[in-house]
Amino acid sequence: MGEFDLIARYFTRPTTRAVLGVGDDCALLQPAADMQLAISTDMLVEGRHFFADVNPFTLGHKALAVNLSDLAACGAKPMAFTLALALPRIDEDWLAAFSSGLLALADAHGCELVGGDTTQGPLTICITVFGEVPAGQALLRSGAQAGDEVYVSGTLGDARLALDALRNHTALPAELLAPARARLEQPTPRITLGLALRGVATSAIDISDGLAGDLGHILQASGVGARIDTAIAMNLMASCAHPLWATGIVSFEDQLDYVLAGGDDYELAFTAPASARQAVQAAAQQAQTPVTRIGCIEKTPGLRLIDAQGRLLKRRYASFDHFI
Amino acid sequence: MGEFDLIARYFTRPTTRAVLGVGDDCALLQPAADMQLAISTDMLVEGRHFFADVNPFTLGHKALAVNLSDLAACGAKPMAFTLALALPRIDEDWLAAFSSGLLALADAHGCELVGGDTTQGPLTICITVFGEVPAGQALLRSGAQAGDEVYVSGTLGDARLALDALRNHTALPAELLAPARARLEQPTPRITLGLALRGVATSAIDISDGLAGDLGHILQASGVGARIDTAIAMNLMASCAHPLWATGIVSFEDQLDYVLAGGDDYELAFTAPASARQAVQAAAQQAQTPVTRIGCIEKTPGLRLIDAQGRLLKRRYASFDHFI
Repeated sequence: MGEFDLIARYFTRPTTRAVLGVGDDCALLQPAADMQLAISTDMLVEGRHFFADVNPFTLGHKALAVNLSDLAACGAKPMAFTLALALPRIDEDWLAAFSSGLLALADAHGCELVGGDTTQGPLTICITVFGEVPAGQALLRSGAQAGDEVYVSGTLGDARLALDALRNHTALPAELLAPARARLEQPTPRITLGLALRGVATSAIDISDGLAGDLGHILQASGVGARIDTAIAMNLMASCAHPLWATGIVSFEDQLDYVLAGGDDYELAFTAPASARQAVQAAAQQAQTPVTRIGCIEKTPGLRLIDAQGRLLKRRYASFDHFI
Repeated sequence: MGEFDLIARYFTRPTTRAVLGVGDDCALLQPAADMQLAISTDMLVEGRHFFADVNPFTLGHKALAVNLSDLAACGAKPMAFTLALALPRIDEDWLAAFSSGLLALADAHGCELVGGDTTQGPLTICITVFGEVPAGQALLRSGAQAGDEVYVSGTLGDARLALDALRNHTALPAELLAPARARLEQPTPRITLGLALRGVATSAIDISDGLAGDLGHILQASGVGARIDTAIAMNLMASCAHPLWATGIVSFEDQLDYVLAGGDDYELAFTAPASARQAVQAAAQQAQTPVTRIGCIEKTPGLRLIDAQGRLLKRRYASFDHFI
């Protein structure tokens, strides 16, 4: 099977929203009047972003999910994407599973594959995704203001717990590994929540590098600081009903690291004025996505982590050291 | 230097056409009313698309040029691009040269860098480019009709000649290598010609895999065939005033292969009705880009290569065997 057959078999489908899809020099999109096109690109490299033996179905899901997560953080509605793929060899079983995982998530969000490129090389996946957002309504990193409250969607830290377990750093019982692994391999892009937060949130970002670092980007872009209640954040791990550290499987400090700096969460961190608490909860309900208030925005720059007793934690995270 | 410093230093510039550029979860573009967005993506992998020791300035140029060439083939005006980059390590000299070559070409075409991704991995460059084209005016592969004439822009075959020389397959005098190498390393995307051919050409494609194969895509998409005068095509090599094969440096057959199937030309192949000969020449003059009429479109499917005596060549090219 050659390149053109590969594209035809696994990556060519009729388009309904795009003017022109796979098969010409360019794809053609026509955003509706007064709509802006939100664009994001992510590159995933074998050995860096995923293990060589990862399930190709979940890899296809994740490759698109991490891009959709960026659209979610902007409050954009998914429209289309392109896929550039370097493959060491043509493995039809792998391609069938990868494209199934990819296109199942794409279909769930009405996001059409409109173009791409395939080449031989070390396994590398580069997706560029396109979404629509009404002019002026995109959620940005730069809108947080002192007095706003800080929220996160869903759960935090499980993906990193799974990664450590799969790397044999942490011995994790199977009943804890399974849900954590699902979070690592099949993250849920918070598209519906992002759409519901338009006009409600003052800023937003998706959590890919860990809460502390990514919230740091909001603080830097907005020229503000924040105070975060780590005791609340610590309870946001999905993989156990009770504090994981209390089981002795991981230390308290490790769990703190998972939650604050684990990465690969693909949840939204966002800010909203205190007056918008009801609107935030309404958005969460509409999106059927839990959100948790974990702190507040302050005028003084820097990220302050507070423990259950209200004390300032000394623990710092490299990814946000630039901003304090 | 970390990822964020790297992006800030080499890949962040103010945007004037994009609503939002580098630095948030998404970039924001707003095409003018009634404009369609033309999108293309290409991935370049070290060892496959370029040598490890290639000049990083010309690599930056080429990585964008091959994408702009796709916009040219659609008659789209460049607007913006994203860059995803996997780097084995951070080498500031390399990054400075690469970004200079990339951004010099981007500036020449008013094409803004609006977003991207950087990661560690085998050197891989994935660019996605965005252009504007008035709704319904994009040049497609599917519009060629029997009776149309076939044209190519510029010169053919020199990039492959240079590649063979650099691989030590062909001993090429320095005065012949230099211009050929320039074609390999710094191809000229035919943007201005593509814009001038809107409303004139009935179909177009950019020649990346070789004339025979890429013209084959037009023939397949349009459901037609073509007859090409290889004696004319053979004269389209830039690197020598006289036939290269006559010098004995390469054989006649090798030169034919360079011109018809060399690849990496990034010229346009296009079709236009015989009644549009003057309009084609006017477009070529306007774009200051030579175009040469090399054949005609016929009803019978398949690509027929004719020699100087009007005989049908038996030589076939794998890349277009699917279509005959």
